[in-house]
Amino acid sequence: MSTLSVNHLLGIKYLKEEDIRLIFETADKFKEVINRPIKKVPSLRDVTIANLFFENSTRTKLSFELAEKRLSADVVNFSAASSSVKKGETLIDTVNNILAMKVDMVVMRHPNPGAGIFLSKHIGASIVNAGDGTHEHPTQALLDSYSIREKLGDVTGKKVVIVGDILHSRVALSNIYALKLLGAEVKVCGPKTLLPKYIEQLGVEVELNLDKALAWCDVANMLRVQNERMEISYFPSTREYVQQYGVSKQRLAQLDKEIVIMHPGPINRGVEITSDVADSKHAIILNQVENGVAIRMAVIYLLASKLK
Amino acid sequence: MSTLSVNHLLGIKYLKEEDIRLIFETADKFKEVINRPIKKVPSLRDVTIANLFFENSTRTKLSFELAEKRLSADVVNFSAASSSVKKGETLIDTVNNILAMKVDMVVMRHPNPGAGIFLSKHIGASIVNAGDGTHEHPTQALLDSYSIREKLGDVTGKKVVIVGDILHSRVALSNIYALKLLGAEVKVCGPKTLLPKYIEQLGVEVELNLDKALAWCDVANMLRVQNERMEISYFPSTREYVQQYGVSKQRLAQLDKEIVIMHPGPINRGVEITSDVADSKHAIILNQVENGVAIRMAVIYLLASKLK
Amino acid sequence: MSTLSVNHLLGIKYLKEEDIRLIFETADKFKEVINRPIKKVPSLRDVTIANLFFENSTRTKLSFELAEKRLSADVVNFSAASSSVKKGETLIDTVNNILAMKVDMVVMRHPNPGAGIFLSKHIGASIVNAGDGTHEHPTQALLDSYSIREKLGDVTGKKVVIVGDILHSRVALSNIYALKLLGAEVKVCGPKTLLPKYIEQLGVEVELNLDKALAWCDVANMLRVQNERMEISYFPSTREYVQQYGVSKQRLAQLDKEIVIMHPGPINRGVEITSDVADSKHAIILNQVENGVAIRMAVIYLLASKLK
Repeated sequence: MSTLSVNHLLGIKYLKEEDIRLIFETADKFKEVINRPIKKVPSLRDVTIANLFFENSTRTKLSFELAEKRLSADVVNFSAASSSVKKGETLIDTVNNILAMKVDMVVMRHPNPGAGIFLSKHIGASIVNAGDGTHEHPTQALLDSYSIREKLGDVTGKKVVIVGDILHSRVALSNIYALKLLGAEVKVCGPKTLLPKYIEQLGVEVELNLDKALAWCDVANMLRVQNERMEISYFPSTREYVQQYGVSKQRLAQLDKEIVIMHPGPINRGVEITSDVADSKHAIILNQVENGVAIRMAVIYLLASKLK
Repeated sequence: MSTLSVNHLLGIKYLKEEDIRLIFETADKFKEVINRPIKKVPSLRDVTIANLFFENSTRTKLSFELAEKRLSADVVNFSAASSSVKKGETLIDTVNNILAMKVDMVVMRHPNPGAGIFLSKHIGASIVNAGDGTHEHPTQALLDSYSIREKLGDVTGKKVVIVGDILHSRVALSNIYALKLLGAEVKVCGPKTLLPKYIEQLGVEVELNLDKALAWCDVANMLRVQNERMEISYFPSTREYVQQYGVSKQRLAQLDKEIVIMHPGPINRGVEITSDVADSKHAIILNQVENGVAIRMAVIYLLASKLK
Repeated sequence: MSTLSVNHLLGIKYLKEEDIRLIFETADKFKEVINRPIKKVPSLRDVTIANLFFENSTRTKLSFELAEKRLSADVVNFSAASSSVKKGETLIDTVNNILAMKVDMVVMRHPNPGAGIFLSKHIGASIVNAGDGTHEHPTQALLDSYSIREKLGDVTGKKVVIVGDILHSRVALSNIYALKLLGAEVKVCGPKTLLPKYIEQLGVEVELNLDKALAWCDVANMLRVQNERMEISYFPSTREYVQQYGVSKQRLAQLDKEIVIMHPGPINRGVEITSDVADSKHAIILNQVENGVAIRMAVIYLLASKLK
């Protein structure tokens, strides 16, 4: 297989295992590129990409922008704050206008779940979902699995626990799809009120006790606690959260093995993980960030080859 | 004629008919370029352009930025929100500072009518007016007339009605100048309170009844209703506006001919035009957007050739 | 000497005289480049630079961005307003994340004095301080001394007075370090409440009377009055300030010689200098801005050569 089965990256749900394997092999090559002195390839000189961010973002936007520039694509940025969206224009009109300017690919972050899917039915460009509400964040899941494969040799057969607010997390959902597709075993761990009801239908087990989850797993992916939600009733207090679901050096020392610690960032140091864990050799958090650029180059490159 | 009669594009008012014809012929070539796989030409490698937007804008800014990049110019963006303008610096000081950094051309949107004209008397760079308050928006008018020429073969002799808030519209004023210069017949149609008193001095007729206006015209250019103004006393309510000045499929069906529907965007679907009109083959709204990039490439290219 | 003694530009305090001389000689070459039709050199095709602005800035950011683009570096911009900083992430985490994306150099403006120094101890990239609170603004001081050298042949032995709010000014502090290192004589002049107590330890004399200071100096560097501070008790009223510390044509006419007037911008016309002074041949304000691009190209180029 040398081409993706899809024309858009709307979610991991729509990918086949071979799609992910192809993305990983392509990312391997781009990871070499970005570690050379000249970090660019001229591959996409003929492609114009619009980054449409209807929600704020630092790392994801920067990572996509670097990926695009290193592929030599022409890049235009658009953020909702300064847009016609404020003037009441519909999403389709906004995007169609941008496309009429001969844009080939749209990377979009949007607060509404399914925004990318909706758009893909109405417009002619290739769409990459950079996060759509609580739905999916497929490039994050791809870089997470890619980072596990890099650290542990393969994803297949590995035991991964995702810890935190599973209910509101597009990172969790996309990770579950990717890990299952690649043959990992997956558990989720977090406050009962933050676990969705359909979770077991995804082939995922629930483990309410973090120490048991850590004892079981090879990898713990620690989701970011969104402090702004901590006042809502179904959330524990920050203090309770740290006690029950925070990973510290002390907690890890009780295990009779070493596990890999992941985090999609930005980290709340002292909440979901302590600083001594974040900065330890257990953590592959900065590798995830580095791999994000390679993965995004691979996704964009493979989708662009389907444009022609 | 192979060069413009002006060194700046401050308004259509300052152009000759031959200037517009030259811009159109140049745009024809660039429209071919942006429909090729590689949408760039190396023409302006030696030109640095600053986009100075003292008002928010999505489509105009993006269109200029793409035009500049496709000409291979170096581009820097500046928006008022993050600028020294807030610190009380004068416009001339701000722009002179930017020019001291060896910027050759300034594309400027500014809330004050005449801001570009004022500036052109004080600085040494070429200025393109990207909208100055209620005064002019010359590239919009050029792309509008270019789109009529593309659709109907020529602008000369065509009957065009501009519908809506003529009083506050720089799009209307620039369109009137361009259409008259190219030999079109022009009427305006809208609420009496929104028609300027000097309108007939521009060689334009007033038609208060939309159905009569549509029966007369070849092209209807539907201005955007600015909802934020709808509460002001000289405005009708949205409902009245739609009834009297909104174009629907039903309204068009009463005509014994087909007319072309234009809109500068962003559209308020269901207000100035209904969705079935906006998405019909009558409408050339997305062609206008596409032509905007070619027209802006032509304007910048022709002005840059006068720098040397 | 053909290489800097430092790996970062954190402040003038950390430079040797030879470093400054090397930067000036390198800037001479780049000043030729930016006055050619094609203002670019391909020197830094293999360098990615992130501009991290945690404070608003127009001219400094634009000047750095143009310098970077004219060196053919890959540039990504990051501003605090749309960043994870708002989500409570630490500065080191933010910057480490950006560096994990293979960024070689960071240009940073930050409200906290010493932010760059702190960061340089924790990250692996080269850092250029683009202003850190009330501490230093080294590229401004370099371009100021470079502009004096250009106008008067050399800095050594010249008499320079810095006028205004010395206490809160990073421009003043960096200028004092640079001028002393290059062998200039330096006085400061301003309201007593705005002169720091340690000023004489820096080898700088205080002159409270502006007319005496002007009679003594070859160059007067007029700091910007920050109007927002004028209500604070240790500040005089604007009217008093203008009377005592503002430079007008009239005031200059009383001197029996010509002096050079500098200003870091943005100017409050009619406060620290009148318009007839700002626009006179005494003032080299726009030369300072032009030289800023050449100086920043030199600094970035010299630091980049130490990366390899």
